[in-house]
Amino acid sequence: MTLIEKLTAAQRANNSWLCVGLDPAPEQLPEAVQTYDDPLLAFGYAIVEATADLVCAYKPNLAFWLAEGPAGLRALRDLIAGIPEHLPVILDAKFNDVGHTAAAYARAAFETLGADAVTVNPYLGLDGVRPFLSGAEHGIFLLARTSNPSARDLQDQLVGERALYEEIARLAEGWDAEYAGTCGLVVGATYPEELFLLREI
Amino acid sequence: MTLIEKLTAAQRANNSWLCVGLDPAPEQLPEAVQTYDDPLLAFGYAIVEATADLVCAYKPNLAFWLAEGPAGLRALRDLIAGIPEHLPVILDAKFNDVGHTAAAYARAAFETLGADAVTVNPYLGLDGVRPFLSGAEHGIFLLARTSNPSARDLQDQLVGERALYEEIARLAEGWDAEYAGTCGLVVGATYPEELFLLREI
Repeated sequence: MTLIEKLTAAQRANNSWLCVGLDPAPEQLPEAVQTYDDPLLAFGYAIVEATADLVCAYKPNLAFWLAEGPAGLRALRDLIAGIPEHLPVILDAKFNDVGHTAAAYARAAFETLGADAVTVNPYLGLDGVRPFLSGAEHGIFLLARTSNPSARDLQDQLVGERALYEEIARLAEGWDAEYAGTCGLVVGATYPEELFLLREI
Repeated sequence: MTLIEKLTAAQRANNSWLCVGLDPAPEQLPEAVQTYDDPLLAFGYAIVEATADLVCAYKPNLAFWLAEGPAGLRALRDLIAGIPEHLPVILDAKFNDVGHTAAAYARAAFETLGADAVTVNPYLGLDGVRPFLSGAEHGIFLLARTSNPSARDLQDQLVGERALYEEIARLAEGWDAEYAGTCGLVVGATYPEELFLLREI
């Protein structure tokens, strides 16, 4: 099953276009889960159990799990393994590195952690992206226009007549056509005009 | 002790400007370490033991350790803890995310894993970089011109009259002056002309 087929089936099954983030900040965990051996994992499971019929995907952000060290990474792996098989998991890791190192990150995302898709930062260009696009069952979401205030520092810079984020959308279109894996885009909903423009592209 | 003081002291003590990477590809590990309980950690320790009087810093790349899951992350943490205290450790992780998530990555790099510095991807702009620059004992190396062939896909794009990587060097100069942490640059030695230009800036 390809990533697109899995995502489309999940959207139809739950009549949903909602992706739920799984980003536990330890200082914000509710008291109810603090008594568990692994509060982060218990919190993650509780969210998944409460929402599995309402979402089309889950998106854990690596940062919050990595900050907890080996135990946090184990919790993330176990949480992903516990998400119902028909719901795609997008690992938000914004990975980026040169070819053979990007291949190690692709292994971390798809094999070690068991995600279906991963966010990737495009700054290194195609050879840092290609290792994530090796199979149709997996895919990436390439950062185009991020949701944060400083996004404009670089992403809005004009390259010829186009903003850099538009340039990335055009590169992504080519990469999506050329490789087996699916290449989507990250576009922050905090910037509706850019979102409209990028959907057009 | 600031990062710059630590690095300068290490350079003087060993009369060295060499930073050694710690990027173990499991399929390339020598047979001698395969018998250890933790071959990656044994390999890392062996490299550090053989080079600790020859280097000014070590640079483990997160990808290779993360691909091994929780055990790999534990090995990385233990390896960094075993590096002589006077030698700085640059975690090559190319982290990038929005402010509060970047803060979780800073905690992962500096507290959980115990690195002195970390590589950071500038694509999200200042608010994704600032959390890494909160203390003078730590610092970042911001990706400017990477060493890979596809670096030119985005990094060489002209923004006005300057290449994007030059723009990043100029931003980094301002950030280095404004915040407590040190802001260095990643410039691949595979591009000597760009290296020369970036050193001038």
